[in-house]
Amino acid sequence: MKNVPGSLGTSGSLALRLGQAVFSSSSIFFMSLGVGFYSYTAFCFLVTIMGLVIPWSFTLAILDGCSILARFPIRQSGILKVIIIGDSVLSILTLAAVSSTASIVDLLLKADVSFCPPRICRSYQISTAMAFSSWLLSLTSLLCNLWLLPTLEAD
Amino acid sequence: MKNVPGSLGTSGSLALRLGQAVFSSSSIFFMSLGVGFYSYTAFCFLVTIMGLVIPWSFTLAILDGCSILARFPIRQSGILKVIIIGDSVLSILTLAAVSSTASIVDLLLKADVSFCPPRICRSYQISTAMAFSSWLLSLTSLLCNLWLLPTLEAD
Repeated sequence: MKNVPGSLGTSGSLALRLGQAVFSSSSIFFMSLGVGFYSYTAFCFLVTIMGLVIPWSFTLAILDGCSILARFPIRQSGILKVIIIGDSVLSILTLAAVSSTASIVDLLLKADVSFCPPRICRSYQISTAMAFSSWLLSLTSLLCNLWLLPTLEAD
Repeated sequence: MKNVPGSLGTSGSLALRLGQAVFSSSSIFFMSLGVGFYSYTAFCFLVTIMGLVIPWSFTLAILDGCSILARFPIRQSGILKVIIIGDSVLSILTLAAVSSTASIVDLLLKADVSFCPPRICRSYQISTAMAFSSWLLSLTSLLCNLWLLPTLEAD
């Protein structure tokens, strides 16, 4: 059995999960700086999905931390499958939310200043960038775990 | 070696690829009915991506057709990897384009009628739905081919 860096129970995975939680939290924080974000469906969608990503990443970060501290690598193929399915669903939803938000911010920037004052628009942009970083980390975790799966099945 | 329905060289794959080509073409057709779609970045992005999906799906449909007619299943792991990478990139880009377009259409529907007359807005909506169907078929192809890959590597 190979040890894939970034897969479940490694320090790489712990770093990826903590990164996802941090980026998702800061995405919600910057989005809520722009008062009245709830009048746009796409922004509400982003906040909802980021609110799902935070507990998911945090739980898996704790699982990774316990696995590293107890020096007991988690190698059950069932647990890995559940994590892969969860990661896939969340990364699809995150990508959809990020691209919706990005297109709305782009439209608001082109439109009248009254729709989106520069200071608030800037915080929407930062929030989108944070959510995109969270998606990249989530995709990395997914690919690492997907890489590990066939080696577990073969054992 | 198992024969996964929907994977490269099967009639299921041929149907999926033809479906992708048809849905992408009709997405471009309905988008171009709305005159002035090029003033929105998201709509241009959708048209560009659909313009990439059409030749990709069509080429793979021809490959599948030849493989079925010649009764010679394509089972090279190298070819399959290239197709899996291409499908992944295109499905990520399609999903991003679809969600951007959907959020812009949603915003335009809520805004003033002068921005988007009902007849044109309806054609934008149909175009988005077609692109989403194309994405679903693309994801199905990707998963089927991904399922086949480990069995080829094991042979």
